[in-house]
Amino acid sequence: MKNRAQAFSPASVGNVGVGFDCLGHAIGGIGDRALVERIELKRTEILAIEGADHALPMEVHLNTAARALESMRVHLNLDFGFRLTLKKGIPFASGLGGSAASASAAVIAANALLKTPLKFKELYRFALDGEEAASNSRHGDNVAPQLLGGLVLIAPDERLIRLPLPPGLYATVVHPDFALETKRAREPLKVPFDLHPIIDQLGLLACFVSACYQGDIELMRDTLRDGLIEPRRAPLIPGFYAVKQAALDTGAIGSSISGAGPSVFAWYLGERSARVGADAMVQAFAQASLRADAFVTEMPAAGAYLEWAE
Amino acid sequence: MKNRAQAFSPASVGNVGVGFDCLGHAIGGIGDRALVERIELKRTEILAIEGADHALPMEVHLNTAARALESMRVHLNLDFGFRLTLKKGIPFASGLGGSAASASAAVIAANALLKTPLKFKELYRFALDGEEAASNSRHGDNVAPQLLGGLVLIAPDERLIRLPLPPGLYATVVHPDFALETKRAREPLKVPFDLHPIIDQLGLLACFVSACYQGDIELMRDTLRDGLIEPRRAPLIPGFYAVKQAALDTGAIGSSISGAGPSVFAWYLGERSARVGADAMVQAFAQASLRADAFVTEMPAAGAYLEWAE
Repeated sequence: MKNRAQAFSPASVGNVGVGFDCLGHAIGGIGDRALVERIELKRTEILAIEGADHALPMEVHLNTAARALESMRVHLNLDFGFRLTLKKGIPFASGLGGSAASASAAVIAANALLKTPLKFKELYRFALDGEEAASNSRHGDNVAPQLLGGLVLIAPDERLIRLPLPPGLYATVVHPDFALETKRAREPLKVPFDLHPIIDQLGLLACFVSACYQGDIELMRDTLRDGLIEPRRAPLIPGFYAVKQAALDTGAIGSSISGAGPSVFAWYLGERSARVGADAMVQAFAQASLRADAFVTEMPAAGAYLEWAE
Repeated sequence: MKNRAQAFSPASVGNVGVGFDCLGHAIGGIGDRALVERIELKRTEILAIEGADHALPMEVHLNTAARALESMRVHLNLDFGFRLTLKKGIPFASGLGGSAASASAAVIAANALLKTPLKFKELYRFALDGEEAASNSRHGDNVAPQLLGGLVLIAPDERLIRLPLPPGLYATVVHPDFALETKRAREPLKVPFDLHPIIDQLGLLACFVSACYQGDIELMRDTLRDGLIEPRRAPLIPGFYAVKQAALDTGAIGSSISGAGPSVFAWYLGERSARVGADAMVQAFAQASLRADAFVTEMPAAGAYLEWAE
């Protein structure tokens, strides 16, 4: 029986532009860690949150990772409890799935303490319970790709579908140095939508999924876009259209807002293109007086994993 | 060089519930015929419309088949013209793609008169130009499956994607005896839509397409539905919810409105189930005092074809 375990969860790109709230992919090279210890008391405690660039809630029901652990403890009717130390690597309100990654890492660490560990897929619902604390809505487009890796589609009844991807794809994700809370980014979506952009987006998403199965890069180029949500959120991100244009000008297959923003992602064919694109996108943010960090990741990127257990 | 040709185009189910304006499938056993003759004058003429249950426009620019022929004649810069005889088999304003089928049959017949006939895929744009006459909008979810057969997804730039289907699927389409014009059925869609049903529908469609590629009947069962458009149009179709329930109660994978209605379709696994379902759906329309015809078709159903040329 293990008493302590630590897991890593990557950041992720929610929505992926074309698939609002139902599509997401993992990003390599940046993520959160959770150290979970077994305690006698049947409860979940937060010991510490390290590395956070913003004060995060220490109350169990408000903290996504602790809430995920508590959901796991209660649903599995465990006869012990959890003590959590969070080690944040993902910036606050960056659109990189940070609140979800804390929950994903926590359930994977806790899983190593179980007598019979569950499959990562089975941990999804617990991580989602945690994620709900941050967003007040139950959307798995960050948690799912963080747990499974790669590009994941959320099906009804919380089933997860890993979409195939042709070889050679790289994602560039550029994070400008300011926070945009999901709650704020949901505001402009409250005004109802006309039929036309809805129809267009339905067609784009259907064809994008088809492009994944067919490995059809040209069809991806025609469909990896968002005419529904992006126009509403773009005004919240200084320089967004210039950054997106910089991506497209450097050969991106597609580019849009990562999650609720303000990060912007782009897909490229080939690592070199992705790196050239990253520089151009960072430059475009600089024009809007925003310092930005860039991450380039091969696709599909690996999902969360257990670092150690003892 | 041929001087006369006749072609048949099947009816079709537009939208297929889950894919508004971007998805459609052919139906076997019912369709329109077009007889097209070469004439000296560089113009398109309508000689006769036979078998119509409703007066159809005899003006070339208002008739979908004639307009499709005229588009073909002009775009291909032909040195001759067309004389059209339409033989309607599909009821007026039934939601079975009748106006599109006239256009599909016409372009296929005319194609046989060309020195170098085009591929059916290349005829799509001309048929779509014709279809525009009826609906005032450019949506190929009827024309595309009529020309290609099977289940077809409309991609950007008028590219067409034939989706794979697992074996054993049958479609039941039930047509109640009243007309519902597409223009009328578009009225309730003018009120803007809230975000939630849009998100749900995006996810359903993405997963439905995935289910087609994976041949996953259970995932089809969870995703072949329409929470976006159907609630708005259902009140225009007496007995709709009872008919849909009759389909689901007899084991349908999914059921919704065919095109703009009033026809209702359902997908089944196995021909026997589809026939039992057809009877139950017809009965349910009878309860709403509507006489109805049922068509049962194996999937994928064949597309349009040339009957003869001389």
